[in-house]
This record gives sequence, C-alpha cells and structure tokens, in this order.
Amino acid sequence: MIVLRYLFEGQEGYGALQGEVVHALQGDIFGSYKTGDAIAPLEAVTLLTPVKPSKIVAIGRNYRAHAAEMGADLPKEPLLFLKPPSSVIGPGDTILLPPQSSRVEHEAELAVIIGRRAKDVPWNAALTYVFGCTIANDVTARDLQRADGQWTRGKGFDTFCPLGPWIVTNLDTAAVGIRARVNGVVRQDGHTRDLIFDVPYLVSYISKVMTLEPGDVILTGTPAGVGPLDAGDVVEIEIDNLGVLRNPVAYAGA
Amino acid sequence: MIVLRYLFEGQEGYGALQGEVVHALQGDIFGSYKTGDAIAPLEAVTLLTPVKPSKIVAIGRNYRAHAAEMGADLPKEPLLFLKPPSSVIGPGDTILLPPQSSRVEHEAELAVIIGRRAKDVPWNAALTYVFGCTIANDVTARDLQRADGQWTRGKGFDTFCPLGPWIVTNLDTAAVGIRARVNGVVRQDGHTRDLIFDVPYLVSYISKVMTLEPGDVILTGTPAGVGPLDAGDVVEIEIDNLGVLRNPVAYAGA
Repeated sequence: MIVLRYLFEGQEGYGALQGEVVHALQGDIFGSYKTGDAIAPLEAVTLLTPVKPSKIVAIGRNYRAHAAEMGADLPKEPLLFLKPPSSVIGPGDTILLPPQSSRVEHEAELAVIIGRRAKDVPWNAALTYVFGCTIANDVTARDLQRADGQWTRGKGFDTFCPLGPWIVTNLDTAAVGIRARVNGVVRQDGHTRDLIFDVPYLVSYISKVMTLEPGDVILTGTPAGVGPLDAGDVVEIEIDNLGVLRNPVAYAGA
Repeated sequence: MIVLRYLFEGQEGYGALQGEVVHALQGDIFGSYKTGDAIAPLEAVTLLTPVKPSKIVAIGRNYRAHAAEMGADLPKEPLLFLKPPSSVIGPGDTILLPPQSSRVEHEAELAVIIGRRAKDVPWNAALTYVFGCTIANDVTARDLQRADGQWTRGKGFDTFCPLGPWIVTNLDTAAVGIRARVNGVVRQDGHTRDLIFDVPYLVSYISKVMTLEPGDVILTGTPAGVGPLDAGDVVEIEIDNLGVLRNPVAYAGA
C-alpha cells in the first residue's frame, strides 16, 4: 500500500494512493484505520511530509564505498546520530543553504518508519515494528560537520531533512536501487544490498538504546557519490518501488 | 513563579506552586493561562517531568574546568548535540544503567526551557524567548561516548535525561551555583558565571541553526567533577533558587 499525507482544498489528511487517485484514510495509520472515499486525483493534491517524527535516528558510514570516500574506517557497530524534527520538510519544499556553511551536500537514503513502540526488539522480529519506508535526503553542511566533530549542527539546520513523497508499506528493504540526481545528472547510484547493517539489525540495535515511537524515522545511511548543492539546483532522490523525492535548493533568507 | 507538572488522584496537569500549595494552571503555559483553585499540598502530589520537549539541544564543554578534565580544547563556538525525547524522565524516576556500558556518569546542568518559537533570534532579545529554567542530569555512558565518537548513543539511552523538579520563570541564569551529590557526597560544585557561552548567546546561536519550539530544552553544559553512578546510588543535582532533582540508579532489567 502507498500511504501519503496530503493538502487538498485547505484540508490536511492521510490518504491511500489507488492507481492515480487519493482515497481518504480514516482512523490512526499506526492503529486501526480504513480506506474511505476518493478525495482527488494525485496531481491535484499537495504532498506533505508523510510523518512528523518524535525523533530521527540516522546511521553514519553504512555503505562501504561511502565510508571510504569520507576517509573513515568501517564501523564495527552502527554509528548513531540524531537530526532534529525541525529539520523535516516535504516533497517539493526548498532546501535552504545557511550562511554559516560554504559546502552543503546531498545524501540519498532509504528511510524506515516505525509503526509501533519498539524497545529491546530482537532482530528477527524487527520488521514487524516497521510501518513502511520512504525516501530521505540527509542534507549535510560538510564543512561544519568536519569542523565540529559532532554532526548535530552540520546535519541539523532547518530544511536539512526532506522526507517523501509517500510511504510504501511492503518494500523489500534489502533489494532496491537508490540514486541521487542533481539537475538531472546522476551523482549517487547505489543499492541497499550493500548496506553494512541491514534494516532489521538497525531497528533492533537502536531499540536497545532508545525506545522508538510510532512515526519515528530511521535514516539508513548513504551510498558513495555525495556532492555539493548550489542555489538554483534541483535534487532528486530516487529509490526503486518508492518513487522520487524532489526538492529545489536556494539561499536562506534570499 | 514556580510552574510544575503534577499527578494527583489520577489527574495530570500543570500547576503553580504558591507557598507549599499547588494551584491549577488553566490554559496553555506557553500561551495564555491563569492560576486557578488549590489542588493539593506539594507533598501530596507526584511531580512529573515539567515539559515534553520536541527536542533537547545540549552543549558540550561549556565550562573551562570540565573541558580540561575531559582532555579537550576549549570550543570557539558552542558544540551542539541532541538527546532524544525518549531519554526524558521526571524527578524521582530511576536512571537505568544499560548492559552495553560499564561507566555511566552524572552531569549536573542548568536547563533552559523555550517559551515561544525562536528562529534567527539576536542574542540581546534571546531571553524573551525563554519560558524558564529547570535542572537536568545529562547522564552519559562515558565508555560508549568515547568509543563511538558521536555522542548520540552514549547520551541517548532511555532514562538518561532526568528533568525537574519544576520550572522557575525568573531565574538569573548567570548567577546560580550548581552542584551534584551522589549518596550525599558532593561531586560537582560549579557556578553558572563560569559558563563559556552564556544563556542568551546559546539561545541565539542555536536558533540560527534550528527553529526552537515552545517546550524545547537547552542543556547548558556541566561543570567539573563528573563521575560514575552505580546501582543503588541516589544522585541529586541542586541549583540555587531552583531546588533539587533527585533520582535513584538501578540496573536496566533488574
């Protein structure tokens, strides 16, 4: 199923995409819900960020080739960091380049959305805690990331976490290609079979540190090929069977 | 004014402490509210964590003597990191020592609570965005903090962010002593006049990175004297004019 959050004629809501038509989802998408009436054709609605997470847990250096391009050793355990909820934007929203940085980069990532509270979950049950997947761009001010040591500022600016365009609930998370294009030029071209720590392992590992809540998001890491974004660019992250997350880029305050 | 969140006879709510009596606060503490009827004497209510933040932004190495004891250079800019909302517990709640760590330490901190949305705030207006202050213990698995490099896991376990006992709305944030005691023995004894970056500077600095929301919490850093916690300990953080935040310590799963 494809679950999306939409704005249509001033109303926000969750919907299910059936063919090219958005149907209302009534109830709680993390509880019990049912599919209701048709709302509008897909092209008539504005897509919103599909979740409002209480936290976004991200994984560093989870593809071998990307760890190498960063000059980093391969991790023996997943390397966790957090992005703030204030960094989330939706499909089509503008990534704003902050004046503090002279090097902002895209990072294409598969994003996992938690469906029910997960604490101390074993890896072989972990997928039952996953609601579905979406696409993320882990936008990063590379200069500030390196200067600070801690990655919070470099990865935490407003607009630095585009999510969307929607949630696919039955994705095979180990079997999808993932690409980033800037102005139509392919910059990253990876595949989730090359994840060092796979999705069940990550959900289990994180749940033994911090309780995951419904709607929380896990960013699973980026493949090789990260590169700079400039004002006027359009960046697209594409994942097989998930779609395309497209965001323009501009200077903050411009 | 002293603002607290209480549980009394199965009801949760915000209250104002007047003398030794809790009065109901009606309305939105971050909007308009008024003080209502007396609820109960202070000793009859259970105090809850005073806020449920959308994010907790913390500052590393913000006292000279603590930076020195960590073997770190003094920062030229505030060093930001995040603790997840899932780490918050209230006064009296138990800090749980996770099996992944063999060295969990206390860090006494002044916590600032944001009162209204703050984005790109100048330092000389920053205090008008502050609702008040409370006490925090930035509990840290020191071994994991050092091993990971990124501090998210070491500082992000469930129960690793005790907050309370309440909010004081008119504290002079540059003029209070701050102490940590373990089983009655003083471990940390500092003063906020020794903050490298003061509260107005921090609010302004953070607001230029990420939009701060009402109820968001800034942990301002810890003075020298951090040390280990063991199961069976009771750790108390005391700040002048704010009170005492007291939490017992136990093994997770015990």
